[in-house]
Amino acid sequence: MSLLIVGTVATDDIVTPFASVEGVLGGSAVYAATAGSLYCPVQIVGVIGEDFPESYLAYLQEREFDLEGLEVQAGKTFHWAGKYHFDMNTRDTLATELNVLASFDPTLPAGYGSTPYVFLANVDPVVQLRALDQMKKPRMTVLDTMNYWIETQREDLTAVVRRTDLVMINDEELRQYTQEHSLLRAARAMLALGPRALIVKKGEHGAALVTQEGYYYAPGYPLEDVVDPTGAGDSFAGGFLGYIAQQGHVSARELHRALIHGSVVASFTVEAFSIDRLKDVTAADIRARYREFAAFTHFESLD
Amino acid sequence: MSLLIVGTVATDDIVTPFASVEGVLGGSAVYAATAGSLYCPVQIVGVIGEDFPESYLAYLQEREFDLEGLEVQAGKTFHWAGKYHFDMNTRDTLATELNVLASFDPTLPAGYGSTPYVFLANVDPVVQLRALDQMKKPRMTVLDTMNYWIETQREDLTAVVRRTDLVMINDEELRQYTQEHSLLRAARAMLALGPRALIVKKGEHGAALVTQEGYYYAPGYPLEDVVDPTGAGDSFAGGFLGYIAQQGHVSARELHRALIHGSVVASFTVEAFSIDRLKDVTAADIRARYREFAAFTHFESLD
Repeated sequence: MSLLIVGTVATDDIVTPFASVEGVLGGSAVYAATAGSLYCPVQIVGVIGEDFPESYLAYLQEREFDLEGLEVQAGKTFHWAGKYHFDMNTRDTLATELNVLASFDPTLPAGYGSTPYVFLANVDPVVQLRALDQMKKPRMTVLDTMNYWIETQREDLTAVVRRTDLVMINDEELRQYTQEHSLLRAARAMLALGPRALIVKKGEHGAALVTQEGYYYAPGYPLEDVVDPTGAGDSFAGGFLGYIAQQGHVSARELHRALIHGSVVASFTVEAFSIDRLKDVTAADIRARYREFAAFTHFESLD
Repeated sequence: MSLLIVGTVATDDIVTPFASVEGVLGGSAVYAATAGSLYCPVQIVGVIGEDFPESYLAYLQEREFDLEGLEVQAGKTFHWAGKYHFDMNTRDTLATELNVLASFDPTLPAGYGSTPYVFLANVDPVVQLRALDQMKKPRMTVLDTMNYWIETQREDLTAVVRRTDLVMINDEELRQYTQEHSLLRAARAMLALGPRALIVKKGEHGAALVTQEGYYYAPGYPLEDVVDPTGAGDSFAGGFLGYIAQQGHVSARELHRALIHGSVVASFTVEAFSIDRLKDVTAADIRARYREFAAFTHFESLD
């Protein structure tokens, strides 16, 4: 089944302790869609400016994304610049030029409203709400967000949370939003708002999936070198929800397997800047790394 | 088989955002021994002062530790005071009064030299070396350390590492010691010094075991409330090595199971101050939580 992704399409400047790039293809929708398309058809709802590079548009077209919901507006494309610290787990935002994103008001093409799986990637909660308002009853709606929206638009964000099936958020942002130091207590506070499940992202340490009944864990994949963590969370989400859309149902079993698929896909993303590695991932790559996860995660039960 | 533990016996003052205690029983050897004794006989090599509380000594005796290697010296017992931050993962040391520990030069009782399993808990590397010099060929020697020794006695510490089978260290300290940002590269750099295995401790996120051939992961146990993280690492080590001593052999399979046992035992430690919860843990408690780890860690392999 299809996956609808609402998010940003951007050009990024990225600085790490080891290398830098300028104007590379980025944005939450681009990472999530590239990951999701490894599993199912993907529709992108977003906006680009007239300056959006031809080669990047060509990639989106060749990847066979449904781009009917990708608006082109007068002005410049959303631009983000960030610098990573030595540990590659924390970063400073150097620039956030909203440009055409500032006035973005999504209008979903006819037919998008019945897409069964929806990922509201990191973008203004008001934009996420506007998109949700145009959806009929999706089977599963997943929300991602960040500290900026928690600090500046908490009420709008909470309104989206209440209409979401699964929330993805990193551990510090979850503590910030709920004011609970215990991640488990914080998770339960978030679930009390309505979502059926929560995924707590822990950067290189992995991710935990918490529901009212259960708890599941996916460690991070041990990489010799992380080239660029940008897009890890978005591609994790794309892999997670793409796998579920491919399966077409959502059992606890599938949720845990989807969690591993998300970790697998994200581990490829960070091996290169932009989507340079992610776009070339094959089904065989995924199967091989999924098996590696099983090998270092599983242990023998008690005699 | 028996487990020999060289470490500190202390009284601790602990402040958390939620509660505080003064003069409670602590020290790396106490936590590790209490954990290890859940699996095998334990010998303690350490030092206490004349002020060591009767009730604490009574506990060590009732626990049936072999205390022949626990010296009593004129002066005061080692005292540590620390304050945890809101996230309960980071802390500030408020006081470190070495007292009798300052002049501690361990003399192992006759017979200790042939104990097959040795845990060199967090203490001056010179003390660890002195103890190692009195050991015949142990089956397995495990080393724990901390940033203070990396900064002040790097050469002595490296000398111990070279004579150790398995090193336990937290992620930030491993990066500090090896100057490698990638944990996997850092682990390989540590292994290059001689140890056969390395356990990277990640606080609430769990721990990874790295060998030349393999990688294994144990996530942290999700607790509603962490009362006091003090001793988590020491009791992790005691549970890990105690399980191996109980099994009497060290296959990759046992290493992974031991990693889970360490995580299980440590998860009880942090549920109360000092050893208040840990000392009452039963075999049934361990089995039940071990099964919980399997439940939230294991996922179905690919069809």
